[in-house]
Amino acid sequence: MIEPKIPKGFRDSLPEMEIKRRRLEGILEHIFQSYGFLPIDTPVVEYTEVLLGKGGGETDKQIFHFVDNGGREVALRFDLTVPLARFIAAHQAEISFPFKRYAIAKVFRGEKPQKGRYREFKQCDFDIVGADNTASDFEILSMMNACLTALNVGGFKIHFSSRALLNDFLQSREIGDKNLAILRAIDKLRKIGMEKVTEELLEEGLTQQNIDDLLLFIQPNETDLNAVLNTLVNLIGKTTDAAIRMKEIISLLEETSISENFIFDPSITRGLDYYTGIVFETFLDKLPEIGSVCSGGRYDNLTGLYSKEKFPGVGSSVGMDRLIAAKEEIQKSESSSTMVDCVILNTDSSTLVSNMKMASSLRSEGLSVDVYLGNKKINQQYTYAQTKGATWAMLGSDLKNLETREVFSGLSASEIALKIKG
Amino acid sequence: MIEPKIPKGFRDSLPEMEIKRRRLEGILEHIFQSYGFLPIDTPVVEYTEVLLGKGGGETDKQIFHFVDNGGREVALRFDLTVPLARFIAAHQAEISFPFKRYAIAKVFRGEKPQKGRYREFKQCDFDIVGADNTASDFEILSMMNACLTALNVGGFKIHFSSRALLNDFLQSREIGDKNLAILRAIDKLRKIGMEKVTEELLEEGLTQQNIDDLLLFIQPNETDLNAVLNTLVNLIGKTTDAAIRMKEIISLLEETSISENFIFDPSITRGLDYYTGIVFETFLDKLPEIGSVCSGGRYDNLTGLYSKEKFPGVGSSVGMDRLIAAKEEIQKSESSSTMVDCVILNTDSSTLVSNMKMASSLRSEGLSVDVYLGNKKINQQYTYAQTKGATWAMLGSDLKNLETREVFSGLSASEIALKIKG
Repeated sequence: MIEPKIPKGFRDSLPEMEIKRRRLEGILEHIFQSYGFLPIDTPVVEYTEVLLGKGGGETDKQIFHFVDNGGREVALRFDLTVPLARFIAAHQAEISFPFKRYAIAKVFRGEKPQKGRYREFKQCDFDIVGADNTASDFEILSMMNACLTALNVGGFKIHFSSRALLNDFLQSREIGDKNLAILRAIDKLRKIGMEKVTEELLEEGLTQQNIDDLLLFIQPNETDLNAVLNTLVNLIGKTTDAAIRMKEIISLLEETSISENFIFDPSITRGLDYYTGIVFETFLDKLPEIGSVCSGGRYDNLTGLYSKEKFPGVGSSVGMDRLIAAKEEIQKSESSSTMVDCVILNTDSSTLVSNMKMASSLRSEGLSVDVYLGNKKINQQYTYAQTKGATWAMLGSDLKNLETREVFSGLSASEIALKIKG
Repeated sequence: MIEPKIPKGFRDSLPEMEIKRRRLEGILEHIFQSYGFLPIDTPVVEYTEVLLGKGGGETDKQIFHFVDNGGREVALRFDLTVPLARFIAAHQAEISFPFKRYAIAKVFRGEKPQKGRYREFKQCDFDIVGADNTASDFEILSMMNACLTALNVGGFKIHFSSRALLNDFLQSREIGDKNLAILRAIDKLRKIGMEKVTEELLEEGLTQQNIDDLLLFIQPNETDLNAVLNTLVNLIGKTTDAAIRMKEIISLLEETSISENFIFDPSITRGLDYYTGIVFETFLDKLPEIGSVCSGGRYDNLTGLYSKEKFPGVGSSVGMDRLIAAKEEIQKSESSSTMVDCVILNTDSSTLVSNMKMASSLRSEGLSVDVYLGNKKINQQYTYAQTKGATWAMLGSDLKNLETREVFSGLSASEIALKIKG
């Protein structure tokens, strides 16, 4: 006997979880496609050099890499962004730009598994590549809003800002060269508080006036989107290109009546040196503590490693595991574990033909119908029906509501379908 | 610069292909779920010993295996059946039997890539585990029939037989111990013809009479399902359990009015030593030459490697790549490359707000609407719309049919939606 175990940090997904995951993916895909975003797929296995660049370095230990049967250094992809960059560089002649794509696929990390962190997990990314303008920034925000609305997880807020605006401010104070240290300090604001951030910034050589202005910049104490923008423009001292674009984005959010889900939050910076324009994170009203469920921003040179041509883009990534956990938490009361509508039970093999015919009729009415195929006692068959999340069961010509225990006899298939559909 | 190439035998999937794949998967999943089959997922990476058994041997060279960062021997799964067996053994206490599951996922083979054979490809499997009876055999056949019907690839025939019936026949002639060599010879019938098969069987020591009967058994020259069964029963000399089950299956196929898609074809044996009951392959009327697009059968001990408990089952696997190619071939004339319904073009940035509002209105009417986000000339925007497979484009308030060149002006969003939906 071999023990049926799986490597540490990997997971099996049982039907109840997997069906939730598929439904979530289905909702997202529907929105993506309604916006004209199209799916692509890339291999799980890529050349190590392609994934890591020629250096490798730190990331090296965090990825699964190996030598294939032909002696080539290959690795499992650790995200969907690097494969997108490689894909764009390889297929730029075959695709139309601006290229709108999504991908929902597994990625792999060799790092030590921790609570809630796995070595294999699904990512869901969507990007617009080959456009650097207001319309594409807005479209990503609009699609995020549509996704979160469709997911039915209660209220949410998309916090957005612009790295370009922050750069404008830093340049206006001639402290642009301290950029990285400042971003690091801002990033820590929520964790360590304003006093410690001030200390760090003093150490970096900023004047008290600049620090006060920077803290006002990242916490402008306004809620109206345009009021925030005005505060930032005043601190910068002029209306820059980034400010004009932000004004246009805000106007589009308002014109399309979705601005109430957006917060202009200049404390959002999203890491250190990747993003160059708009940046955003999304928090659920009911579960802010789980962190951002949808984040991303604008970058200006996706394919730098593989192509001389520059491809700017803007994109976002959905935190699938977080959203599934959130849906479970928020929708506890709903019977979200329904996996089939009706289970057809049996007493003996003489009912086989009529059961199969009934199943066939109910399926053609659009129902999900599970015929119990074992030979256990009727009580165990009811248990089976419950594990499938069914509200209805049929035994002979009796239709039984498993929640209310009501029984309906002698109904036709279409009458049964009507009852089940409620 | 690093060349943006991928390892040999791997593929990128561009939007046009990927959207076809997703649609195919969607159709299959819908049918699976309507039958109460539920999805599961297992890791891409498993322990090598779990996938190969303690020996390893031949398969060893055909899989991607490596040592992970913790020094453990791991490998990429090469099919979905071995992981299912491991899954059942590991989770038998958590799942309800009979367990109906499907899985659509990537598998990996280290073997030399050839035309049409890749090192990474998607498999789609569905199985009922934990039942050995007529009902479960029938349900797999019924679901295959529903899938092929829903896929809209024209007529098809599901060829089925029973390995148990063949064994009954071989035992009736007391040649059961030559089983493997005989199965190999039967398998070659279509390739090498009846004469050479006869030669091989003579070499195996079969009498001419037994060979004649065997050839009649596998080619009974009848079309009616029950007539074939009668011929086989006569050759066997008695009504065995396998014959009774087959009679019940045929009766269910007839009662549910799907028997016209089925051929009782005793030359179907499906390989050498895995299957123990019903076996089946599916051929498309229009493209028989591409081989079986959906095959499988009944097995009696899925989890032998990992558990003392025996789990019998019956299952089938859909040839996704073949079906996508077939759909393309058969549906050539249809505009199957439609990826969005309408593309909204632009002349200058002044139309941005109205375009985005129009897109939002049309999406809420259920349409897939792509707003062109670049700043190319209008002719290039029309080209963009064509690469997205759109039949309709909007420019300002004009709706244009890209096929007929008709233009409709001044329509409201809901009137536009009606036009596009046709």
